[in-house]
Amino acid sequence: MKLYEQFSTEIKDQIEHGYYQPGQKLPSIRDMSTTRGVSISTVQEAYHLLEDTGMVISKPKSGYYVQQQQNTDLLPDISRPEQKPVDVAHWDEVLTLTTTESHHNFVAFGGGAPDITLKTLKPLQRIHAELSRQQPRCLFENAKGNGLEELREQIVRLMQNSGCFLHPDDIVITTGCQEALSLSLKAISKPGDIIAIDSPSFYGSMQAIQSNGLKVIEIPTHPETGISMTALELALEQWPIKAIQLIPTSNNPLGYIMPEKNKRKLLALAERYDFAIIEDDIFGDLVYQTPRPKSIKSFDTEGRVLMCSSFSKTVAPGLRIGWVAAGRYGELLTHLKFITSLGSTALPQLALAKFIQQGYFEKHLRTARTQYQRGRDCMIHWVQQYFPEGTKMTYPQGGVGLWVELPGDIDTLELNKELLKYDTAIAPGTLFSASDKYRNCLRLNYATVPNDRIKAAVKTIGEQASLMLKK
Amino acid sequence: MKLYEQFSTEIKDQIEHGYYQPGQKLPSIRDMSTTRGVSISTVQEAYHLLEDTGMVISKPKSGYYVQQQQNTDLLPDISRPEQKPVDVAHWDEVLTLTTTESHHNFVAFGGGAPDITLKTLKPLQRIHAELSRQQPRCLFENAKGNGLEELREQIVRLMQNSGCFLHPDDIVITTGCQEALSLSLKAISKPGDIIAIDSPSFYGSMQAIQSNGLKVIEIPTHPETGISMTALELALEQWPIKAIQLIPTSNNPLGYIMPEKNKRKLLALAERYDFAIIEDDIFGDLVYQTPRPKSIKSFDTEGRVLMCSSFSKTVAPGLRIGWVAAGRYGELLTHLKFITSLGSTALPQLALAKFIQQGYFEKHLRTARTQYQRGRDCMIHWVQQYFPEGTKMTYPQGGVGLWVELPGDIDTLELNKELLKYDTAIAPGTLFSASDKYRNCLRLNYATVPNDRIKAAVKTIGEQASLMLKK
Repeated sequence: MKLYEQFSTEIKDQIEHGYYQPGQKLPSIRDMSTTRGVSISTVQEAYHLLEDTGMVISKPKSGYYVQQQQNTDLLPDISRPEQKPVDVAHWDEVLTLTTTESHHNFVAFGGGAPDITLKTLKPLQRIHAELSRQQPRCLFENAKGNGLEELREQIVRLMQNSGCFLHPDDIVITTGCQEALSLSLKAISKPGDIIAIDSPSFYGSMQAIQSNGLKVIEIPTHPETGISMTALELALEQWPIKAIQLIPTSNNPLGYIMPEKNKRKLLALAERYDFAIIEDDIFGDLVYQTPRPKSIKSFDTEGRVLMCSSFSKTVAPGLRIGWVAAGRYGELLTHLKFITSLGSTALPQLALAKFIQQGYFEKHLRTARTQYQRGRDCMIHWVQQYFPEGTKMTYPQGGVGLWVELPGDIDTLELNKELLKYDTAIAPGTLFSASDKYRNCLRLNYATVPNDRIKAAVKTIGEQASLMLKK
Repeated sequence: MKLYEQFSTEIKDQIEHGYYQPGQKLPSIRDMSTTRGVSISTVQEAYHLLEDTGMVISKPKSGYYVQQQQNTDLLPDISRPEQKPVDVAHWDEVLTLTTTESHHNFVAFGGGAPDITLKTLKPLQRIHAELSRQQPRCLFENAKGNGLEELREQIVRLMQNSGCFLHPDDIVITTGCQEALSLSLKAISKPGDIIAIDSPSFYGSMQAIQSNGLKVIEIPTHPETGISMTALELALEQWPIKAIQLIPTSNNPLGYIMPEKNKRKLLALAERYDFAIIEDDIFGDLVYQTPRPKSIKSFDTEGRVLMCSSFSKTVAPGLRIGWVAAGRYGELLTHLKFITSLGSTALPQLALAKFIQQGYFEKHLRTARTQYQRGRDCMIHWVQQYFPEGTKMTYPQGGVGLWVELPGDIDTLELNKELLKYDTAIAPGTLFSASDKYRNCLRLNYATVPNDRIKAAVKTIGEQASLMLKK
């Protein structure tokens, strides 16, 4: 981290702790330089950075002022999906989103990918290339059963950070988190069963629900605390819900962290109503605060939580390495993994195990988290600046996506079509609903280092949205 | 190929074409050396090789004689599974087979793996290591949609050898053939449906059938020509069969090639009775004859054949790269692939595409086929030599496995338990049946270059089988 970045973080901390109040003028650049013993240019750059992230504003010929804090009025309301089981649709839009050609000049805000150009991934590439050269067996042999033991050992070690103390044999390696979710659903349900989900919810897992012949009931979800426990309990009284599937920590797309007491309460409900919990923790290690919050799995004594995760967000999606800690469903999961794809390639598993074991993973995580947090701040600032008045948005606690709710009846599927003309794409909100909700919402990926090209693209989205509003 | 190997192939051809008759004495080593203009030692080594493969026998103080030809009395009878839909079981045995620890001294005849130590795979390793070093994006990015176009182009080119003329967009890359089969089943059926299969049949696909909540009806199968068309037609009259799943070319475990007229007839039946055909072609390119036989897919004008294959047998299982050419179900397959595992790693796909494109794949195939054919001949010879009288066996036309039927009521599950004490394992026959048939059968893998250790292990199997027979 450069000196000015470090210095700007210090000021930011002080603002957050109330040392400088919202609306207050910051010391002049010269004063700050003298009192803190740093150069004029360091203070200047630090102030610019704080301005970029929307933390301070500059008033010409006056100086820098602390921005009014993130206004909770800006948060979207709790979602209000229909309270009955429905079928999932929207495959066509998912297909469009996931196959849109993204050429060099394209600004793709739609996907959920992390930044794979980070330098902290270099050691993984090196280890992978070395293994590839030196250990052909690793490339040609299939990692059978539950996956490579070396990697399962590292996963178990990492999972201690979320309060889970498991044995490597409790882990089944999968082809990414999607296979983990898909197999978990298969393990706990049969066609026709009802699955409860948070709403908005990740489209990939909704598609998996649909393809297993299941119905979903979408539970109202608060943008800061997650699913409404009251609404869930009402649904449980009314319907024979087989499982709940959700992303409680660093939610996709809302970015919230479900409070620990709600996590515990959910587990108590699962015990009372005898259902399984599919806990998607794919963004759990990308929470900006440390230590990261505990997972639902960590409170589970009955083995009813199937915790699904992967390295697709924390490292790179191309590795296709995920896992399930399936509790009482462990043996069944091994079976399902076998019949679905036999096993997964050994080489990237071994490379990843070494990457983690040699300490590179945690270093990479730190870098990525810092970048994404800064990305979030910039993105929020730009959206506030360029999007039409009345726009609401989340305040993500982790991950790489901002959820935005546009005013009026702007249809973001239409907006997305317009944006393609400007080589830009978003994820339309309707993808995240089984029942055609969130048509005026969208998700923006902020994983990339903020730059002028991205800023300009965000501005274009805002302009196009404003134009549609006026029609 | 060394000179003596080449020379032994020449003599073998001449035997097969009747130039030397069964029982006839071959020219003496000296005569052969003079007339063919090769060294004494070359002739000696060629004769030894022919003896190893059971093609000739040496009579002390007399010379070398052409062996009596493969006696069709040795072939197992056509299978007679029960002619009604049943559920698939046997998961425990499959799990044991696929997770048995195989340490250094272990002789594992049970698996279906090819020889991954062949030198002709070196270029793939080199290409993979180079890409790994030079193109990190390839390692970190996910190949979306149907998989990497470069590879799909090569697959389409290779499929021309089996008479298929497709477009790269007709191909969906999968995580090995198992995912291809599993997704295909999902595309054409719903729980409770009946799937017809050849019998004996590959246990992996039977497990996939079971996990999709389907029932199977096993069709009587001839060890030289495949499923009985008459029996299939009877079954079609009686049951609402949704699809047939089979390995028509270089069958696993029987090694036969279904005659072209039967392939065409099967397709005609599919049209008449409106069912889909899941054609598992995983061993199709490992048929010993060239050009390889045409696939059922090549005659398909209605898009009802889902051809599943992979590079797991022709190259290496660890790559986990398979594909489906799904005809009319293509779009559905893309959807199912997405929700099952999102996509597959790009790096090995690109490496494989280059390996094929640069001509290394076909060179490797030639080497592998020659080795496996020789492996087959040795294995048959050893089984004839060491197994109890009354043992029957197939005469595989491709692939890496010999199917053996033991006399009496020897239970090969029991035999396998005994063999573990001798660090040896087989694939018990019952794995290949949904209805507990083939308890006295086993499959032997002959992919490895024949050597004394393997010979000794085959002898041990024969001895243990004889001991069990006497009990």
